[in-house]
Amino acid sequence: MRLGGIEAGGTKVVCAVGTGPGAIAERTMIPTTTPAETLERIAGWFADRPVDALGAAFFGPLDLDPSSDRYGYITSTPKPGWAGTDVVGFLRARLGVPVVLDTDVNGAAYGEYRWGAGCSAGTLAYVTVGDGIGGGAIVDGAAVHGILHPEMGHLPVRRHPADVFAGSCPFHGDCLEGLASAPAIARRSGRTPADPGPEPARTVELEAYYLAQLIAAIVYLLSPHRIVVGGGVLHLPGLLAAVRRETAGLIGDALPALRDRLDQYVVPPALGPDSGVLGAFVLARRAHDYRSAVVSD
Amino acid sequence: MRLGGIEAGGTKVVCAVGTGPGAIAERTMIPTTTPAETLERIAGWFADRPVDALGAAFFGPLDLDPSSDRYGYITSTPKPGWAGTDVVGFLRARLGVPVVLDTDVNGAAYGEYRWGAGCSAGTLAYVTVGDGIGGGAIVDGAAVHGILHPEMGHLPVRRHPADVFAGSCPFHGDCLEGLASAPAIARRSGRTPADPGPEPARTVELEAYYLAQLIAAIVYLLSPHRIVVGGGVLHLPGLLAAVRRETAGLIGDALPALRDRLDQYVVPPALGPDSGVLGAFVLARRAHDYRSAVVSD
Repeated sequence: MRLGGIEAGGTKVVCAVGTGPGAIAERTMIPTTTPAETLERIAGWFADRPVDALGAAFFGPLDLDPSSDRYGYITSTPKPGWAGTDVVGFLRARLGVPVVLDTDVNGAAYGEYRWGAGCSAGTLAYVTVGDGIGGGAIVDGAAVHGILHPEMGHLPVRRHPADVFAGSCPFHGDCLEGLASAPAIARRSGRTPADPGPEPARTVELEAYYLAQLIAAIVYLLSPHRIVVGGGVLHLPGLLAAVRRETAGLIGDALPALRDRLDQYVVPPALGPDSGVLGAFVLARRAHDYRSAVVSD
Repeated sequence: MRLGGIEAGGTKVVCAVGTGPGAIAERTMIPTTTPAETLERIAGWFADRPVDALGAAFFGPLDLDPSSDRYGYITSTPKPGWAGTDVVGFLRARLGVPVVLDTDVNGAAYGEYRWGAGCSAGTLAYVTVGDGIGGGAIVDGAAVHGILHPEMGHLPVRRHPADVFAGSCPFHGDCLEGLASAPAIARRSGRTPADPGPEPARTVELEAYYLAQLIAAIVYLLSPHRIVVGGGVLHLPGLLAAVRRETAGLIGDALPALRDRLDQYVVPPALGPDSGVLGAFVLARRAHDYRSAVVSD
């Protein structure tokens, strides 16, 4: 069996064929431009590299309700031109193979769950902090969808007492994403995560204060076996350790055993930058197995 | 088949035999005193009313990890005398039937999921606001446990600008439970939810402000198909409507379709006070079906 994986973000798309870590036969990178051009290039690349099933981990929001007439569409994204794009329909029609779509963060969560920090054990949450903040959760082997899919970045958070930045979220201003995403850091400080300037300690302090509130919320609402935290902002030196310290403070004596082992509980992606595209292989495998089960019945 | 259900809270235990709503053959109420006395009375009542399986929805925290040598125990509860109580072991030994244990809120969530506001469809979250604040979630038919079980009451929340109460949580002070549980209301105001005094509007405003943050967090982290909100504090006139209004403000244009139908999305328990004990029947049924499957293999 040969699987295809697509990880589509706001600026670039990674396409790969293979079966898992150490078994990526080939990969390419395509810039995210218009939906027509981008999907055409994706389909063209896979047309030359036949696969048995395709997994697609896309930026959203997505319609993932199989009973919806817009199943497999990108819905209300602010990304120009992409709202209303039929990702699943286009890829199925062009490539003639089963396609499973999920969010980019759920894709990364599947990758880490299957081959990375989750080790297929129990429940895993995955959080990414970059141009946006997103999160997904795998419970009993499947991503949590519900009525839509998680949008963890919009969590309401307590404001740091020394932070006067209004926040950058177009919907909420100072929700988590509005205060702690890479654009928020840049707008507050005039700096970027890659160039934090002379006061990186202040950025680390604010980031840890805000991100720890998401980690604590995940602990209290989902109680996963592990939380993976990735994304470009986490390259800030000392940030992950600071997030663990702040999280320990928010948990306190309510869950002392968990508080005392946060270094093993809140962890970076074990698959590095490949969580997403490997997770897309997991989605492809699900598409293939489901189709096989249906056909063989 | 005849099922037994136990709903054990901090002040009283409800025991019932039956199979579901409209089919509760008999029930009793036992005060929660010492573990030895309380469990003895529970076992005695069921000894006279044989059942095929027993579901127990207990106050916690509980050890629900089947691989743990303390599986089925109450763990670190502050309730005097109850920490380290082996609920499952005691009931199995005394009654000789399969026993499944879960938290009181997960029990209520199962009841509402199976027969109440959830209608067995998709993902359901259940929140109760009383002497404590708790929450549970059913995803694909099973309660979310993970490394422990949800402890939604300890969510960090933004403080209402006009609220100077320090908070009543012994662990965190001003987490959600510390600011919005019935004891928090009483300590802040010198009043109780049942006797809100001359300024109930202020209590409703504060409660709605805090509880809406949990509802929003559940939406953003779990995206359930429906959220049921119960518990004694919700008897405050106008509170549920106020919670919906505050939640709509926190969601805003991020999820407009959801924001505009919160009256059908954030709902009271359809089973009234019976969510918990009926959910215990669901647990009993799971115990029975699992045992049957294992034995018949």
